Amino acid sequence: MSSRLVRPVAPGGVIGILGGGQLGRMLALAAARLGLKAHIYAPAGDNPAFDVAHAHTTAAYDDEAALHRFAAATDVITYEFENIPVAGVELLAEQSCLRPGARSLQMAQDRLAEKTFASALGIPTPPFANVEREEDLSAALKQVGLPAVLKTRRFGYDGKGQARVHDENELHQAWAALGNAPCILEGFVSFTCEVSAIIARGADGKTATFDVPRNEHENHVLRHSHVPSGLHRQTGHEAVSMACRLAEALEHVGVLAVEFFVLQDDAGNQQLLFNEFAPRVHNSGHWTEAACDLSQFELHVRAVCGWPLPQPRRHHDCVMTNLLGDEVHDWQALAREPDTVLHLYGKREARPGRKMGHYTRLLSPRSA
Amino acid sequence: MSSRLVRPVAPGGVIGILGGGQLGRMLALAAARLGLKAHIYAPAGDNPAFDVAHAHTTAAYDDEAALHRFAAATDVITYEFENIPVAGVELLAEQSCLRPGARSLQMAQDRLAEKTFASALGIPTPPFANVEREEDLSAALKQVGLPAVLKTRRFGYDGKGQARVHDENELHQAWAALGNAPCILEGFVSFTCEVSAIIARGADGKTATFDVPRNEHENHVLRHSHVPSGLHRQTGHEAVSMACRLAEALEHVGVLAVEFFVLQDDAGNQQLLFNEFAPRVHNSGHWTEAACDLSQFELHVRAVCGWPLPQPRRHHDCVMTNLLGDEVHDWQALAREPDTVLHLYGKREARPGRKMGHYTRLLSPRSA
Repeated sequence: MSSRLVRPVAPGGVIGILGGGQLGRMLALAAARLGLKAHIYAPAGDNPAFDVAHAHTTAAYDDEAALHRFAAATDVITYEFENIPVAGVELLAEQSCLRPGARSLQMAQDRLAEKTFASALGIPTPPFANVEREEDLSAALKQVGLPAVLKTRRFGYDGKGQARVHDENELHQAWAALGNAPCILEGFVSFTCEVSAIIARGADGKTATFDVPRNEHENHVLRHSHVPSGLHRQTGHEAVSMACRLAEALEHVGVLAVEFFVLQDDAGNQQLLFNEFAPRVHNSGHWTEAACDLSQFELHVRAVCGWPLPQPRRHHDCVMTNLLGDEVHDWQALAREPDTVLHLYGKREARPGRKMGHYTRLLSPRSA
Repeated sequence: MSSRLVRPVAPGGVIGILGGGQLGRMLALAAARLGLKAHIYAPAGDNPAFDVAHAHTTAAYDDEAALHRFAAATDVITYEFENIPVAGVELLAEQSCLRPGARSLQMAQDRLAEKTFASALGIPTPPFANVEREEDLSAALKQVGLPAVLKTRRFGYDGKGQARVHDENELHQAWAALGNAPCILEGFVSFTCEVSAIIARGADGKTATFDVPRNEHENHVLRHSHVPSGLHRQTGHEAVSMACRLAEALEHVGVLAVEFFVLQDDAGNQQLLFNEFAPRVHNSGHWTEAACDLSQFELHVRAVCGWPLPQPRRHHDCVMTNLLGDEVHDWQALAREPDTVLHLYGKREARPGRKMGHYTRLLSPRSA
């Protein structure tokens, strides 16, 4: 077996998906519409993706025997999240075709590698510096300035593993609070808004791209994505173009979501600063299933299975809103609203802040 | 347990679906998007719906023990086809909430009952007469005229169980060829085109309706559905209105698909004649998943689960085309086409004429 698929995974084939949450579930649903079978691999727990999959494996991500069996039972393997242990990734990449590949994962797993990589491609980023030892702190501060944000290099998501600091004293405290783990110190950016570029790249290097959403966060968790974003047309094109450049350099196969800060000066000039990327389908692309002919989930499945990637078309302006925790209990009121596409994830327990579903309000037919 | 749901089936609940084919599969996919679990019940065979379901039961439709267990494991039960044996229907209706209910099934299972019922509601039909005994043949012929179509009253679909007759001799031969089974003789209608009305009715009596597609058949099997239909606006409204009248009289809960012949005179006046109805999602409504914000599958799931039924909105003109038998092997070429939503059913074997998938070409934004 090699890490390259010689031919596309035909209908009836099996796509392996690491991760049993809502993203794995929506990938499995998209695979089903193309006549493909989904096999979900996830550790024990509430795995809503299992309910829509042809097969599932309940095992830890470092269970080598289970990973071997999973690789043997699938035609191609992808994932719904990027924090898979490196040993597991290497094993799967040897045994099967893992897409997106090792390079995308390696970069996505380390904030320092990720920003260094983007920066080397000429993609503007906020100032950043590495923090591995106590003595790195003051050097980093000098380089980056204040205020700044200290983030663990690994395993951060939704604002976890990061702290904002306003002076050197806070910086030392923050680093201690993060367990003296390898960190990156980033200059705090006073941005106008946040946007993301969501693109898909095929094994043949061709890309398909979505319109750029503007993303509103609350407590570091995505709350709304608005399309169109309200950005200048040229700024939107730049975001997409930078995402394509990243995908190309990563030899990425699948959906790539790239988050940017948008800075705007008094004259209205807009500038994009790279924040981070996800080598997978992304929460800020959920509106695509409601407002486009092809969703990010379908494009990801198509890309990793070696299928063609037509350019998706958006038919409506829209706003996607996440349902967090108890908000899912409003499902009856939401189900009553016209022009609203509701999507619930089938999770058992509505813990506070947990992503339980989302809905997309279709506004007017596409305006921009 | 009663045949009425006191409250809606909440997310996390289980919808039972009788039948494991593509309709059951698409219902299961729609249920999943609402956070509902699907439990499929079907006899052994190629059951592509199993691949996307939370649970499945492989058993015959007259296996009482299995039906009891199925009823106990589900919150509401629906079906993808109407030819379920009456004993099974009665058992399920007693044990659980079966939707659409016994009346819709009873009428749909007997072409004579169906046409009599429609006719009694003032819905125009072609002339028809009952044929149960040899001596009924000539009386029926007198009543109906020639040419005519002899159809078995039960278990016909896609042109199976019917024969066109041009004289009395052919009629006797046709009846013998159909095994002297109870039949209906219908006057042959020289129609301009065929259309269908697809509506959903909730347990509260409220309805939601789709635009009427014009349906092209080949060898009695649906080939294309076109939306808009090209009918006069008023004719389209009449079709929808007659379907709603039928649903009301049947106390139907779920999607109801009603097929009509369209007659047009030289002055362009259009007349609708009722052909038949299906108490379920229908092949001529598959375009709704690609061209509307809410599909027929979602509306059926919503209706049988007691959820609200917002009026769906169509955003594109479109044509849906069935992929029959070997045609599914063109999947790569179809997957390459822009503005085309492809849906494959994951069936194992592409037998001649078998429905293997469909695709919907999105034309321009909604025109009419």
